[in-house]
Amino acid sequence: MIYLDNAATTKPDEECLKRAEKYLHGEFFNPSALYKGGYDLQCEIRSARENILSLIADKANYELIFTSCGTEADNTAIFGAGRRGNVVTTSGEHSAVFSAVNELKQRGIEVRFANLNADGSVNAEHLLSLIDEKTSLVSVIHVSNETGAVNDIAAISKAVKAKNKFAYFHSDGVQAFGKIPFILTKDIDFYSISAHKIGGVKGCGALIKRKNIVIKPVIYGGGQEKGMRSGTENVFAIKNFEFAAVKKYKKIKENYSATQILHELLWEKLDKKLFTKISGKKCSPYILCVGASGLRGETILHEADDKGLIIGTGSACSSNEKNRFSRTILACGVGESLADGILRLSLSSETTKEEILTAAEILNEIVANRKAIMA
Amino acid sequence: MIYLDNAATTKPDEECLKRAEKYLHGEFFNPSALYKGGYDLQCEIRSARENILSLIADKANYELIFTSCGTEADNTAIFGAGRRGNVVTTSGEHSAVFSAVNELKQRGIEVRFANLNADGSVNAEHLLSLIDEKTSLVSVIHVSNETGAVNDIAAISKAVKAKNKFAYFHSDGVQAFGKIPFILTKDIDFYSISAHKIGGVKGCGALIKRKNIVIKPVIYGGGQEKGMRSGTENVFAIKNFEFAAVKKYKKIKENYSATQILHELLWEKLDKKLFTKISGKKCSPYILCVGASGLRGETILHEADDKGLIIGTGSACSSNEKNRFSRTILACGVGESLADGILRLSLSSETTKEEILTAAEILNEIVANRKAIMA
Repeated sequence: MIYLDNAATTKPDEECLKRAEKYLHGEFFNPSALYKGGYDLQCEIRSARENILSLIADKANYELIFTSCGTEADNTAIFGAGRRGNVVTTSGEHSAVFSAVNELKQRGIEVRFANLNADGSVNAEHLLSLIDEKTSLVSVIHVSNETGAVNDIAAISKAVKAKNKFAYFHSDGVQAFGKIPFILTKDIDFYSISAHKIGGVKGCGALIKRKNIVIKPVIYGGGQEKGMRSGTENVFAIKNFEFAAVKKYKKIKENYSATQILHELLWEKLDKKLFTKISGKKCSPYILCVGASGLRGETILHEADDKGLIIGTGSACSSNEKNRFSRTILACGVGESLADGILRLSLSSETTKEEILTAAEILNEIVANRKAIMA
Repeated sequence: MIYLDNAATTKPDEECLKRAEKYLHGEFFNPSALYKGGYDLQCEIRSARENILSLIADKANYELIFTSCGTEADNTAIFGAGRRGNVVTTSGEHSAVFSAVNELKQRGIEVRFANLNADGSVNAEHLLSLIDEKTSLVSVIHVSNETGAVNDIAAISKAVKAKNKFAYFHSDGVQAFGKIPFILTKDIDFYSISAHKIGGVKGCGALIKRKNIVIKPVIYGGGQEKGMRSGTENVFAIKNFEFAAVKKYKKIKENYSATQILHELLWEKLDKKLFTKISGKKCSPYILCVGASGLRGETILHEADDKGLIIGTGSACSSNEKNRFSRTILACGVGESLADGILRLSLSSETTKEEILTAAEILNEIVANRKAIMA
């Protein structure tokens, strides 16, 4: 099996699973319990929090709230910070932000969507033009989960604050964390991350926020996570997230360069007569989005699956939305014929050159055959 | 180690862990993905949903929404159904309900708290007197997480509907599910359950709701769980929950009877000159709440911990609340001196007679010594 749907979820790293296993067995206590077994786990959570945070942010100014997933982290930022006036975001957000801001609309908040460029990055000029003195929150995805476009959130957040210093800035960093070398800059107030996109297990995400900002939580209860996320802490998933994140960051630059080479190789080997590249130059090496015009991505996906190649057609999280076309891809200005044949090929640092070569071969063959039949 | 804090969390069942392990390894796909590996997991989630639901509810009328924990399940019911007029609940709710209704207050909903009886059960007459035509939601915990008192939610929900047929009825069933033989009766609209209290792992709970009720979710995103709980499904925790729940229900009556005997034995062996029983006659066998008047529960807990006995002083989830006394225990009418010395001894179906005898011995010794020093 060749797995090129790492943007949907990654195979949990075996070494990190092994290291976290004990939290499912002997060290199973409730971290809020007062006896030693509980207190020790509270300390373990604290070290996980600090170790993950220090990978991407200045610990003096930021804090980290563990959540049950990236979606919940996004929701915590959106519902916590988008409480008045208008909220400005992009047409290329993950469903976790897109659906949350649509709910904000229901609650009487105006929501403004900035246009995308052809590669799926946000048109920063348009975004800035939407911001006014009533803007309470701006949310811009760091790396597009569909095209891989990297938004320059350091520059965008700075420009946002120059226009309205009271507006909060959030970024969904789920496809960037552990992959794109980056440290949070001071104008970024909130940043969402997720474990299962970088070799951790499902069931853990986190919202990184500036310490001096007070927002309401989404989940209320026993006051865990300083009251920002109640519910018994999922210690196994939290520690596993720590191990996976630290491991990824140890080699983040080497992985980036190596994946960049594979990304270029993949596009090089795909038949340009059959495929159109949607991903642009400033793209995460971990995502290559292409279209096979006139074909349906889903049928290519199934045929590839039969041949042992696993790929995506876009965001797995959007498959529940029942729309034929991806709203992000349409917002890139892609026509419906091409939008129908979109494939998302997403790599991990474990992807090999041989897998890339075989994958390109399989995809070329499937699409060539189908086009031949249709011709 | 003797572990008598099973109401805080249970040791995950090794057999169920083993069975669910594959979802952390080979079967790691995103269940929303369209290829076979993803679709198969969607089917696995469906069977987990049906298998858990059928343990406690009529599948024709109820559906089950997987959440990340019991707290989130409670929040989904409270925020989803408590949207107007007033909400009636009890003074003995778990923090997940208590904090959520306090947040409802901030949102302009009136919240009314029914008094407790001495054993921690709700004064049903008082509860009913609080309900009027403006009541949108009534929430009554099934088994008190502090005293183990069992509320007759079948009778209470029926009486609630007789008084206001438009009011929704929710019950936090976290300490009842898998322990107290019970099937949801038709006047119960929402019921919350959790995996890690019955040998499952942390990171999974569920809200069971009547199918014909439409409420808003708490978490928005990709539309998983029919839009009621977005975020990539935690397949490992969900399947593990299924295995643990089915296993518990296979022997629920035998376990109940066996635990009842141990519960009685534990109280029998505790020195009545040293301990006062808070738990009443209609109590879950899985929880024995006692008080050692004039002593601090926390110091007894630490000394017991040193001697290899792990107990609780009340809800672990309340340890973040920083209050000296448990609000539930005070609401039982317990004075401050006794409230200071509260111990919660909570059993599981794995607890043995030998453990109970040793635990009683350790507790008698600790308290006798401390009282002797103070005398």
